[in-house]
Amino acid sequence: MASPSWLLLHRTVRFGDTDAAGVMHFHQLLRWCHEAYEQSLEGFGIASACVFPVPAAERPAGLEPLAAALPIVHCSADFRRPLVCGDPLDIELEPVRLDPGSFEVRYRFRRVRAGEEPLEAALGLTRHLAIEPTSRQRCALPEAIGRWLEAAAVAQGGIRPL
Amino acid sequence: MASPSWLLLHRTVRFGDTDAAGVMHFHQLLRWCHEAYEQSLEGFGIASACVFPVPAAERPAGLEPLAAALPIVHCSADFRRPLVCGDPLDIELEPVRLDPGSFEVRYRFRRVRAGEEPLEAALGLTRHLAIEPTSRQRCALPEAIGRWLEAAAVAQGGIRPL
Amino acid sequence: MASPSWLLLHRTVRFGDTDAAGVMHFHQLLRWCHEAYEQSLEGFGIASACVFPVPAAERPAGLEPLAAALPIVHCSADFRRPLVCGDPLDIELEPVRLDPGSFEVRYRFRRVRAGEEPLEAALGLTRHLAIEPTSRQRCALPEAIGRWLEAAAVAQGGIRPL
Amino acid sequence: MASPSWLLLHRTVRFGDTDAAGVMHFHQLLRWCHEAYEQSLEGFGIASACVFPVPAAERPAGLEPLAAALPIVHCSADFRRPLVCGDPLDIELEPVRLDPGSFEVRYRFRRVRAGEEPLEAALGLTRHLAIEPTSRQRCALPEAIGRWLEAAAVAQGGIRPL
Repeated sequence: MASPSWLLLHRTVRFGDTDAAGVMHFHQLLRWCHEAYEQSLEGFGIASACVFPVPAAERPAGLEPLAAALPIVHCSADFRRPLVCGDPLDIELEPVRLDPGSFEVRYRFRRVRAGEEPLEAALGLTRHLAIEPTSRQRCALPEAIGRWLEAAAVAQGGIRPL
Repeated sequence: MASPSWLLLHRTVRFGDTDAAGVMHFHQLLRWCHEAYEQSLEGFGIASACVFPVPAAERPAGLEPLAAALPIVHCSADFRRPLVCGDPLDIELEPVRLDPGSFEVRYRFRRVRAGEEPLEAALGLTRHLAIEPTSRQRCALPEAIGRWLEAAAVAQGGIRPL
Repeated sequence: MASPSWLLLHRTVRFGDTDAAGVMHFHQLLRWCHEAYEQSLEGFGIASACVFPVPAAERPAGLEPLAAALPIVHCSADFRRPLVCGDPLDIELEPVRLDPGSFEVRYRFRRVRAGEEPLEAALGLTRHLAIEPTSRQRCALPEAIGRWLEAAAVAQGGIRPL
Repeated sequence: MASPSWLLLHRTVRFGDTDAAGVMHFHQLLRWCHEAYEQSLEGFGIASACVFPVPAAERPAGLEPLAAALPIVHCSADFRRPLVCGDPLDIELEPVRLDPGSFEVRYRFRRVRAGEEPLEAALGLTRHLAIEPTSRQRCALPEAIGRWLEAAAVAQGGIRPL
């Protein structure tokens, strides 16, 4: 099944992402992962201010403060091929609910240079835990995140192994 | 005269761009400026590998090594309004040739929240000098950059004050 | 007059600070400026939690929430010499009160390679405005910042031109 | 056995490391890991220019170009406790040779707030592969890295499980 547009994103490697070895500096990939996660939520129809903290004075009228924060408790990345300035990338996201209060997102980066076969360049993973913002006690995932996880599971072929 | 698409770009403030004050952390804006400059060149039709260094093994076949590097010798930014996670931005670029071997790019960031008037949020500036990569002696701007500067001057209304 | 240790700092250029041109990527310098400003306050004896926002649950016992935020309203940098991975730097800070509600910090970066003359490599500047955090209205500088500015003015030779 | 100074480092969480949730933004930890690895090599007596690429014109006289690059092929991090602006950290490094052409570094971050018990705040891991810079074929670790790995194994109690 083809991925919906909110699970298949695109970006380009920029000069500031590289280091003196001439290729992407490793930790930039984790930044790309988080930005892809934000862009996916947005593409699915969830406003940033529903998931990420925004100062009260800047919060859209009528929007309640967040019931849960979603800090990352684990992340990892595997690097398969060098990425250079200007390389176009496809990013495929696979969000997976782990339990009522946590989920992870797996990210597959493909280098899609013109005139070359697409090549798997890197994999990323972020694991998120829902916590009550002040007490930092575990809580249930926000309802909007639950809908995004459900829709992703359906779009990507139904039940998948945890 | 309306800006061509390669001089009017868009991006969204991401969570990792903010700091504990809840708003965009100042130096991220300079990163956005450089990424907008790269995206503008690309949108105009200049491949990244024509302007930015790429390791020999990854350089597109037939493309010569760079004749000039374009380091930034000066940059500045002015911050007018807070930007929070999820804020959509318009970025207008005004590239200006300064002399045969240097140019600057002025960036105007407008916050374009749904249901609000667009507001000027920040200004940026980067000044670039052409140098021969090994000797680091000043040299002429690469021809591709010259075409981009010409086209921008025409698109933005002809002669402008330096 | 020799600078006190809280106005003369040191750092080393790291691999992730460089880009594919082999030298420091320009906007990292602004990050170094802000980190030097934080380190200077700390070295002078002002706890971070007195100046920068910290979530209530993590605030040291007895410390009040911040009376003022100090956002940067302007910054600039000039780049004079390439900096490569491993280059040791001296950073000299010159904090200057501009009016009762704002100040700027000027930063001078010297490259101090072993066996070479120290060379001025870059200059930076950040300008800060005191605002009341919720209303974002201008207010007076926090008293601790005032003491730091006074001490710097004395250490660096008294009255200086604005 | 107590760690030598080149395996036990210190840093402070800075404002730009935090995000709008008020705590350290996750991927900054991977940057800290790499900077700690560089600082450890330096503290052990290995110049940066022996391990990281430096443009020919800036290379110390008499130093040969690098025989091997050491790209990261895998990284991970676990986050145990929130870190806020100003938090002092101890970073303990455990470098481990994996085979003649690769090694990993494990990083343990402890939050050492004044008046509190030190607390394990995060763990990091970077895995590095030696490659010949132009062909990108696997090769042996540079001799300097080998000495650092040996000395670390001895300092940290001899043979350890892979």
